[in-house]
Amino acid sequence: MYELMVIIDHKEVFIIIEKTEQVKILVEALQFIKKFSGKTIIIKYGGSAMKNAELKKTFVEDIAFMNLVGINVIVVHGGGHSINKMLKKLSIEPKFFNGLRITDEETMEVVEMVLAGSVNKGIVNDIQLQGVDALGLCGKDGDLLDAKKKIIEGKDLGFVGEVINVKTSLLKDILKNSIIPVIAPIGKDNLGNTYNINADDVASAISKSLNAEKLVFLTDVSGVFSNINDHTTLISEMNVDQALSYIGDGIITNGMIPKVKCCVEAIQNGVNTVHIIDGRVEHSLLLEIFTPHGIGTMFIK
Amino acid sequence: MYELMVIIDHKEVFIIIEKTEQVKILVEALQFIKKFSGKTIIIKYGGSAMKNAELKKTFVEDIAFMNLVGINVIVVHGGGHSINKMLKKLSIEPKFFNGLRITDEETMEVVEMVLAGSVNKGIVNDIQLQGVDALGLCGKDGDLLDAKKKIIEGKDLGFVGEVINVKTSLLKDILKNSIIPVIAPIGKDNLGNTYNINADDVASAISKSLNAEKLVFLTDVSGVFSNINDHTTLISEMNVDQALSYIGDGIITNGMIPKVKCCVEAIQNGVNTVHIIDGRVEHSLLLEIFTPHGIGTMFIK
Amino acid sequence: MYELMVIIDHKEVFIIIEKTEQVKILVEALQFIKKFSGKTIIIKYGGSAMKNAELKKTFVEDIAFMNLVGINVIVVHGGGHSINKMLKKLSIEPKFFNGLRITDEETMEVVEMVLAGSVNKGIVNDIQLQGVDALGLCGKDGDLLDAKKKIIEGKDLGFVGEVINVKTSLLKDILKNSIIPVIAPIGKDNLGNTYNINADDVASAISKSLNAEKLVFLTDVSGVFSNINDHTTLISEMNVDQALSYIGDGIITNGMIPKVKCCVEAIQNGVNTVHIIDGRVEHSLLLEIFTPHGIGTMFIK
Amino acid sequence: MYELMVIIDHKEVFIIIEKTEQVKILVEALQFIKKFSGKTIIIKYGGSAMKNAELKKTFVEDIAFMNLVGINVIVVHGGGHSINKMLKKLSIEPKFFNGLRITDEETMEVVEMVLAGSVNKGIVNDIQLQGVDALGLCGKDGDLLDAKKKIIEGKDLGFVGEVINVKTSLLKDILKNSIIPVIAPIGKDNLGNTYNINADDVASAISKSLNAEKLVFLTDVSGVFSNINDHTTLISEMNVDQALSYIGDGIITNGMIPKVKCCVEAIQNGVNTVHIIDGRVEHSLLLEIFTPHGIGTMFIK
Amino acid sequence: MYELMVIIDHKEVFIIIEKTEQVKILVEALQFIKKFSGKTIIIKYGGSAMKNAELKKTFVEDIAFMNLVGINVIVVHGGGHSINKMLKKLSIEPKFFNGLRITDEETMEVVEMVLAGSVNKGIVNDIQLQGVDALGLCGKDGDLLDAKKKIIEGKDLGFVGEVINVKTSLLKDILKNSIIPVIAPIGKDNLGNTYNINADDVASAISKSLNAEKLVFLTDVSGVFSNINDHTTLISEMNVDQALSYIGDGIITNGMIPKVKCCVEAIQNGVNTVHIIDGRVEHSLLLEIFTPHGIGTMFIK
Amino acid sequence: MYELMVIIDHKEVFIIIEKTEQVKILVEALQFIKKFSGKTIIIKYGGSAMKNAELKKTFVEDIAFMNLVGINVIVVHGGGHSINKMLKKLSIEPKFFNGLRITDEETMEVVEMVLAGSVNKGIVNDIQLQGVDALGLCGKDGDLLDAKKKIIEGKDLGFVGEVINVKTSLLKDILKNSIIPVIAPIGKDNLGNTYNINADDVASAISKSLNAEKLVFLTDVSGVFSNINDHTTLISEMNVDQALSYIGDGIITNGMIPKVKCCVEAIQNGVNTVHIIDGRVEHSLLLEIFTPHGIGTMFIK
Repeated sequence: MYELMVIIDHKEVFIIIEKTEQVKILVEALQFIKKFSGKTIIIKYGGSAMKNAELKKTFVEDIAFMNLVGINVIVVHGGGHSINKMLKKLSIEPKFFNGLRITDEETMEVVEMVLAGSVNKGIVNDIQLQGVDALGLCGKDGDLLDAKKKIIEGKDLGFVGEVINVKTSLLKDILKNSIIPVIAPIGKDNLGNTYNINADDVASAISKSLNAEKLVFLTDVSGVFSNINDHTTLISEMNVDQALSYIGDGIITNGMIPKVKCCVEAIQNGVNTVHIIDGRVEHSLLLEIFTPHGIGTMFIK
Repeated sequence: MYELMVIIDHKEVFIIIEKTEQVKILVEALQFIKKFSGKTIIIKYGGSAMKNAELKKTFVEDIAFMNLVGINVIVVHGGGHSINKMLKKLSIEPKFFNGLRITDEETMEVVEMVLAGSVNKGIVNDIQLQGVDALGLCGKDGDLLDAKKKIIEGKDLGFVGEVINVKTSLLKDILKNSIIPVIAPIGKDNLGNTYNINADDVASAISKSLNAEKLVFLTDVSGVFSNINDHTTLISEMNVDQALSYIGDGIITNGMIPKVKCCVEAIQNGVNTVHIIDGRVEHSLLLEIFTPHGIGTMFIK
Repeated sequence: MYELMVIIDHKEVFIIIEKTEQVKILVEALQFIKKFSGKTIIIKYGGSAMKNAELKKTFVEDIAFMNLVGINVIVVHGGGHSINKMLKKLSIEPKFFNGLRITDEETMEVVEMVLAGSVNKGIVNDIQLQGVDALGLCGKDGDLLDAKKKIIEGKDLGFVGEVINVKTSLLKDILKNSIIPVIAPIGKDNLGNTYNINADDVASAISKSLNAEKLVFLTDVSGVFSNINDHTTLISEMNVDQALSYIGDGIITNGMIPKVKCCVEAIQNGVNTVHIIDGRVEHSLLLEIFTPHGIGTMFIK
Repeated sequence: MYELMVIIDHKEVFIIIEKTEQVKILVEALQFIKKFSGKTIIIKYGGSAMKNAELKKTFVEDIAFMNLVGINVIVVHGGGHSINKMLKKLSIEPKFFNGLRITDEETMEVVEMVLAGSVNKGIVNDIQLQGVDALGLCGKDGDLLDAKKKIIEGKDLGFVGEVINVKTSLLKDILKNSIIPVIAPIGKDNLGNTYNINADDVASAISKSLNAEKLVFLTDVSGVFSNINDHTTLISEMNVDQALSYIGDGIITNGMIPKVKCCVEAIQNGVNTVHIIDGRVEHSLLLEIFTPHGIGTMFIK
Repeated sequence: MYELMVIIDHKEVFIIIEKTEQVKILVEALQFIKKFSGKTIIIKYGGSAMKNAELKKTFVEDIAFMNLVGINVIVVHGGGHSINKMLKKLSIEPKFFNGLRITDEETMEVVEMVLAGSVNKGIVNDIQLQGVDALGLCGKDGDLLDAKKKIIEGKDLGFVGEVINVKTSLLKDILKNSIIPVIAPIGKDNLGNTYNINADDVASAISKSLNAEKLVFLTDVSGVFSNINDHTTLISEMNVDQALSYIGDGIITNGMIPKVKCCVEAIQNGVNTVHIIDGRVEHSLLLEIFTPHGIGTMFIK
Repeated sequence: MYELMVIIDHKEVFIIIEKTEQVKILVEALQFIKKFSGKTIIIKYGGSAMKNAELKKTFVEDIAFMNLVGINVIVVHGGGHSINKMLKKLSIEPKFFNGLRITDEETMEVVEMVLAGSVNKGIVNDIQLQGVDALGLCGKDGDLLDAKKKIIEGKDLGFVGEVINVKTSLLKDILKNSIIPVIAPIGKDNLGNTYNINADDVASAISKSLNAEKLVFLTDVSGVFSNINDHTTLISEMNVDQALSYIGDGIITNGMIPKVKCCVEAIQNGVNTVHIIDGRVEHSLLLEIFTPHGIGTMFIK
C-alpha cells in the first residue's frame, strides 16, 4: 500500500489512503481490545520513560487508552534517579549492595518522601490530566503491602524489604470504580516499620496475587537478545523452559538475569504473560499491547 | 511524514515509521473514545452497506469497536431491497405512494417476516461473530414500539405506521448488560395490529426518547452538498437554522429534504448531533466517529 | 354438589353455589401455585394449538397466568405448517427424511424467516396483549444456541442441526425481569452457519441446561396409551424404567417412540417432570399444572 | 351451562365440563391477579371470621393466595371477644363508653397480652401453616405505631389511643421480603406508655400512610343496604359523595355510620378502594377480590 | 492515680483527673469494640435483672451500647416469674417436674400470652426508648423456631418442647438492618402445636446455629465458684475439659450442673465463648464485655 | 463519689467503685455515640499534637474510636514544622507573607514531598496500626481538590492556592467502605500546576462540601477566651452573631481572628458545629466529642 504513495501525490487521494490506513489500524487494535478488555494488566514504570517529558506524556496517553477500553491497569513505579538527586541535595551518599540500596533510617525517610510524595503524585497528576482517574498509594495505604526485612546473602541492608502480603480487596475495589491505582514501592510491617522494596518485586507480587493477565516491565533495553551485541537477535517470545535454559547456557547474562528470573517466577505463579519492553520508544505500551507484532520480549508458560 | 517514505526503503526503518503511524492513530482515537464512552449512539443501517459483503463486514467491525470502547450502540435497520426480492418471488407487486410502501395485510406479513426474520437475525449473527453480544428485536418484543396508522396526505396506505411510544426501560436494561439491540422497524398497537414503519423514523424516535448523544444515518450519499453537481462542496457541519434556510433557499432539494428534516427534528428533540454519512465507504462509522475530520455531514444545535 | 343443582333452580341460590365452586377451584389452584412459584417450566408449543384461533388465545392466557403467579416460563415453538405454506407459495417442494426436513440453503432461509420472523413475533404479540412481557429470540440472539450439523443414519440433511450449548445466563437475566423468552428453534455455529433444529430437541436441551422443574410438550395426542385403540387406557404417570419397558414391550410404538425417548432423556438429565399433553383441549396447560388430576401423561424419575 | 348437567350423567363427560369450569374460573381470576399483583392491600380481620374454625382456615388460605400471586398483604386484627373472655377469667369487668373500651392500667396489660400474645401469634401460626411467611408485630416493634391518648367527647378513657405516625419503612422492608405483617392494634408514645387502639383505625391509618390499593374490612354484615330490612338492597358500590348523602339522608344509620365514615376518610386520604365484606362467608376475600361480581360494598372516589 | 486524689482537692485539677480517667476507660473500651464490632452476641435475659426497675434500665442501656458499636445483639428472654403471677390470678396452680414447668393446654395459652404478649413487648418498648430498633418475635414468627415435644426421663410434660431448627436467614435479615431481635422462647411444630421451651436452650440453639461469638447468661449468681461457700473463689475462666472435670469432681453441683453443661455444649458446637454473669449488678453486660477484667465466669474452648 | 475513696482502701470495694465509674463513663459516651453515629466529622490535625509521640498515639486512638462507633471521620493535616526542617536541610530559607508561605517552584516541590510523602503516610501508618483502615490522599488523587492561585492583598505568593472544588463522590465512596481519608492540603489546576493550600481552608472547604456534622480544629490553644490573660474565661460555646461581635468588640484579637472567621464561615455554609480544641491535651478529641462537658470552644449557628 505504501508503494502507491510514491506515485500519487494529489492531496485528495492521499487523504483517502490515509483514512483507509487509519481504520485498518483501529480494526487491528479491535482484536486486542476484545482480548484484554476486563483483564488486569500491571505496568512497572521506570527508567528513561520517567525522565523524558515526551515519553512521560505518551506513557500516560497509553495508560488512559488502556483504561478507556476497559482494561484494569495498575501502575507500579520506581524512582531511583529522583531519590539519588534528593540524597545528593541533602549531602547523603547513596550506598548499594548487589544493586540494592542500603537503606538506613535517614535514607528511608528520603526514599518514602520522594517516591510516595513527589514521583507518585506527579504520575497521578499526569494521568488525571488525560481525563481518567488515578489514585496514588503506597503500601501503607489501606494496609496494601505487608513487608518484612529482606536479607541478601546474609547481609542486613537496613530497611530493605520484600512483600509478604498484598491486600487485593483494596485494589479490586479501586479498579471496579475504573480508577487506576498508582503504587509507590513502600511497604510496612505490623510494628510500624517502613520498608524500601524493589519496584519490580512489588509489580510481580501484585501480578501474582491478582492472577493478572499481563505484567509489563518498561525498561531501558529493547528486550532480550540471543546475542547481546547484535540488535537483530531480539527474542520476541520465550517460554519458561527456554528462559531457564538461556540463563543456563549463558545467553542471558548479568543484569538481565534477575529480571528474567522475575518474569519466569511471575509466569509460574499464575500471571498469563510477562513482557520486557523498551520504555525509550514512544507509545511502547500501545505498540506492544494493541498492534500485531509487538516490540519487546514476551514470556509465556 | 509520508514524504519520507519515498526516500527510505530499508525495511526495518519502514516498520518503525509504520508503528509510529499506528500509535498516532490510536492516540487520536483516544480523544474520541474519552468523549463518547458511556454515551448512547443510534445507527440507522441501510442501503448499499447492507448489500455488499465487504461493507457488511466492516460495518459490524465498527459496531463491535464502538461496543468495546464503552459506547451504548443501538442499530436500527431497513431492508427494502430484501422485501422487494421476496415480494417478487411471491409474485406480489410492490406499490408505493410518496416513497412509502403501500402495505396491505399480505404485504405486511412479508415485510415482518423478511425484516424481523431474515435481515434482523442476519445482522445479529454477523455482530455475534465479532465476539460481542447482540439481541434482535422488533417493536413487538417486550412492548418496544407502540405505533398507530400513519395517514399521508389524507391517504390510507394500509399497515403503514408511526411510532407513538418507545419502551426505553427495555433498551436501557439491554444496554446495561453491554448487549447491542438490533431493531427491525415493525410496530404494533393495542389491538394486535402490526405496522410497517420507516426505519429512519424509528431510529429518530428512539434517539429522541433516549436523549442520545448521536444519531447516524448510513446512506448511499456522501452527505449534503451546497452544489449537488460539485462533489467538492460537501457541507461538513450545519446547525438547525442553516439547515432550514438551505431548504428554504432550494440548496437542499428533492429526496434529501425529508432526511434533513428528520435530522433537524431529532436535534430539536434532544439528540446532541445527527450525521449523514456514506455507507458505501468501508469503515465509514469509525472514520466519522473516531478520526478528527469525519467524512459526512454533521447536524448540530 | 352438582347433584343438588338439578333440584334447585332459584337463581340467587344458584349464584352462591357457583361462588363456592369458584373459591374451591382457586383454593385447589393455590397448592400448585405454592409448589411451582419461582420454578422454571419450559413449554414446547406446536401442532393444532398454534393453528386454531381459540386455542391460541387460551394458550397465551395460560402462559400469562403462569407468569403472574411467579413461574419462570419459557416457550419454545415449532411452525412446520407455516413453513410448508410459505415453501408452497415459493414453489419449493418440502423434502423429508425420517420425519426431519431436508434443509438446503434456500429452504433454510425460508425456515428462519418464517419461524423467527412470522411465527415467533406472532406469539410474542399475543402474549404481550395479555399484559405480560415476552421477548422473541432465536439461537443467534445473544449467542443463545450453539449448534452443529446433525447426521441422521449417515445422511447429511443440509442445515439440520442439534444443540451443543445453551447460554443459560441470557435466559436467566430475561426471566429475572419477569419476561417470557419465546424461542424459535434456529441455531448457529462459529462460522456463521444457520441451522434448523427440531423444536422438541431445543425445548429439551434448554430444560436440561436449566435443571427445569417441568418440560411440557403440547401435542396433538391426549398422552400415552397402553392400548392405542382404547382411549380409556391413558397412562397418567410413568417413571423412566416403565417408559423404557413400554417401548421394549411394543406398547409405545411408532411416532411416539422418539417423543417418549426425549422425555426419558430429559428426566435423566435433571428435569424434574416431563409432560405430554393434548394441545387440542382449551387451557390444557392450566388443567395439567393447576388442577389436581391433570389431563395427559407425566414422566417422573 | 349447568342446565346441561341435568341431562348428561355419563361420568367422563361430566369431568370435562367440570374441567372447563375450572379453567374458566382460573382465567377470570387472571384479570384480577394482573390488576393487583405488586399492589398493597390491608385486611382488617375481626368478628365471626376470627372465631369459627372453618372460617379461620379459609381466611388464611385466601391470605396465602394473595401473597403468592404477588400482592403485598397486611393483616390488622382485633380481638375484643378474647379480651373479654380473659377479663372475665380475671374477674375484671369490661367497661365501655360509646363503644370504646375504658382502659385502665390493669385492663391495658390484659389487652396487650391477649392481642399481641395470644391472638396475634395464633394468626401468624395459621398463616405459616399455609406455607407462606408472616411476622407478628404490635405498634412497639421497630417503632411501628406512634400514638397519643384519644379524648372522646371530653372524656378520658384511660389508655385508649389514636395513631399519630406509622413507620412505613419497616412495613416496606418486610413486604419486600414477601412476608405478611400481622399487626396487633397496640401503640406507644415517647414516654413508654402503651395504648389500646381501635383496629379499624389502625388499618385505616396504615392504608393511608402507604397509599394502599385496597383496604378491606371483614365484618359481620353483608355490606351496606339501602333498606336495612330488605337483604336484596345491598349497595355494591358507592362513591364518597353518595356515602355522605346516604348518611345525611338517614339511609346509613347507627353502628354503620362510623364504619362508613372511616371508609370515606380512607378514600379521601389516598386509598384507592375500601370494601366492607361479610366475614361470615367462607373465602369472602377471594370472592371479593378475584371474582367478577364481588360480594360486599365497595367505596370508590 | 487515685492516691493523688487524697492530696489534691482544688476543683479544677480534680476535673482534669476525672477527664483523664474518662478517656482511659473509653480507650480501654476501644480494644473490645474493635474485637466485637460486626460479631454476633446472644444474651439470655432473665432473673432479677428483669424484675428490678433500675437493673432493667441499665440492661437496655447496655444493649443499646452494643448495638451502636456495631455488635449484632440478639436477646432471648425468660419470664417464669410473670407467668406464675398470671397463673395465680387465674387460679391455676403451677406444676413442675425436675425444674421444668408441666404445661397443659390451658397453661400453654397463659405461657404464650405472658411471654410473647407482655414480657416480650415490654422489653422491646424499653429498648426502643433508648433510640435503637428492636423487633419482638416468638418461634412462630417467620417460621423462626421449629420444635418438638421434649420427653424428660420418660415423662410427658405436655407442651414442653425443644428446638429442632432455627431459621437463621430471618435473624440475619433483621440484624443486617441494625435491628435487635428480642425472642420469646415459644416454638411450634408442623401441625400447629405450640411449645414452651426453656429460654437457656433457645439462646443456646440460636447461638450454635449462628456460630455466635458469644453467648451470655444473665443470672442471679456471680458465676461459678470453686468453693460455693467462699465468694473469693470465683473461677474467671475455664475451658471445656476443666468444666467437665469440675462436674466430675463435685466442685460444680446441683442447679449449676445443667447450666454449665449448656455452656460446654454451646462451645462444642461452634460458639466462641460463653459467659455466666451476675444480672444483679448494674451494667453487668458492659462490665463483662467492654472492660479488661470482666465480672463473671467465661467458658472457652 | 471520689471523696469516699480517701476513706476506703479495701481493694475489693475499690474495684467495684472503679467498675461503677467505668460503666458510668461508657453510658455517658453512649448518648454521644447515638448522636454522631453515621455523621461526618472533619478533623484538622496540626500543631503540637503532630509532634509529641504520646499525643500522636492518643490522637490515632481517638480517630479509631470514632471510626469504630460508626462516625465518618476525615483527617486533614498540616505539617509546617516538617516542611521547615526539610527546607533547612536543603538550605532553602522559608519566606512568609501575612503568615502564608511564599511558595516558589522549588519550595512547592519540597512542600508536596514532605506533606504528601512523609507526614501523610506517617499518619496513615499510625492509624492502620490501630486496626482500622486509612487512605492517604492529596488533592491530585482522583481529582479530589481543584484549586487556583490565591492572591493575598494583591500579592502573588507563587504556588499558594485556594480550593475551588471538592470531588465529594470520591470521599463518599471511601467513607462508605469504613476507610478514613487522610488528606494532605495540596491542590492542582487543569494545567497540571500544583498548589500549597492552607490546611484550615482545605478542612473547611471539605466540611462545607459535605455539609458535615462537625469540623474540629486541633490547635495549640485551649479555645477562645473572653480575656486572653485569664484562663478561667474560656468561652465554651458561641453562636455566629456572638463570634462576629466579639471580633468587632476587640475581644477576639490577632491570630485568632482568621481562625474564628473560618469557623463562622463554615457554620454559615452548612456545617452544624465547629470546634477549636486544645491538641496539647491527651485524647482531646474523645473528651470534646464523647464526654458531657467538652474542653474547648464550640461554634454553633
